[in-house]
Amino acid sequence: MKAKFIAFEGGDASGKTTQAERVAAKINAVFTREPGGTPVGESLRSILLNPISPLALRTEALLMAASRAQLVHELISPTLTKGQHVVTDRYISSSLAYQGYASGLPIDEVLYLSVFATKELTPDLTILIDLPVEESIKRRGKSPDRFEEENIDFHKRVRDGYLEMAQINSDEWVIIDGTKSQENVAKDVDQAIHDRLQLP
Amino acid sequence: MKAKFIAFEGGDASGKTTQAERVAAKINAVFTREPGGTPVGESLRSILLNPISPLALRTEALLMAASRAQLVHELISPTLTKGQHVVTDRYISSSLAYQGYASGLPIDEVLYLSVFATKELTPDLTILIDLPVEESIKRRGKSPDRFEEENIDFHKRVRDGYLEMAQINSDEWVIIDGTKSQENVAKDVDQAIHDRLQLP
Repeated sequence: MKAKFIAFEGGDASGKTTQAERVAAKINAVFTREPGGTPVGESLRSILLNPISPLALRTEALLMAASRAQLVHELISPTLTKGQHVVTDRYISSSLAYQGYASGLPIDEVLYLSVFATKELTPDLTILIDLPVEESIKRRGKSPDRFEEENIDFHKRVRDGYLEMAQINSDEWVIIDGTKSQENVAKDVDQAIHDRLQLP
Repeated sequence: MKAKFIAFEGGDASGKTTQAERVAAKINAVFTREPGGTPVGESLRSILLNPISPLALRTEALLMAASRAQLVHELISPTLTKGQHVVTDRYISSSLAYQGYASGLPIDEVLYLSVFATKELTPDLTILIDLPVEESIKRRGKSPDRFEEENIDFHKRVRDGYLEMAQINSDEWVIIDGTKSQENVAKDVDQAIHDRLQLP
């Protein structure tokens, strides 16, 4: 069987990282995250999350794409080529949701950057852990990074963007109700992976 | 008079940095350089010139564009808006020459990244200090950075790319013979700036 590429997407505090790590361990996949996942990418992650001076929106979009280009080149493509699954915590759709839908850069331009970065490598399945913004705010911890400091309207645009993408690309996306208990979210995620990708 | 934006381009050891700094001082312009020119850009410069692990070509192109986006946003546009000239050591055409013509990424894709990064802000005049590759090799110092370690064919493709761009865009470009003495190169540069931009 061809190795599968699964992306987890969602807003802050949606529980997607927990699920992505759990699934990666369960199906013996290489786990990675964005921005980051490579030494160069982790350097870019620290610039993105704690910039020396305020980042221009276009700089942010290009840095996300740069981190992604390196991740695909160094880790995702080689891993899939040698037959091992890959699970990533965030991928192209995060850029579309945050820099596109929420921050207002043209969606097609942000998409172009990622198509360039990834040479059109897209996930076999994108799992959206969906959570109302109010619930996400309740769950948040005490060390907000830059993205979490954005306002509520911003996070609502992120969520609406994700839901729109999931509807447009319903063959490759599944929406999981993130308000359920962690145990039940896990059950729904596993069911989706089983149904869509025929993984055990 | 509207503030002018001048870019110097050319291969390594062409003398363009010397000329760019001299011109900037002479016409009271803000001088900057790429990659770099802002705190974020200088962080990216150090990743580009001394990466922790080998950079994918597409990562390199995206990081160049990211540095450029920040430079335009933080320095070039605000400076021009307040009426002061800007002189830059390298700009969009460096990406086209190095990542496009020389390294083989599609020119139109590399250009797209810069159009996105700069919101189409192009120089009023691009000054190419042209030098045969053999002459450039003779002039090089002892601390080659990553770009200078590339082979001779690579640098020939850079030069040919520059010459082609200068011919295609002859209204906004001027080619200066970099084999002349520094004094005579300076004279030619000043003449070109006088003729093309009506600067003293």
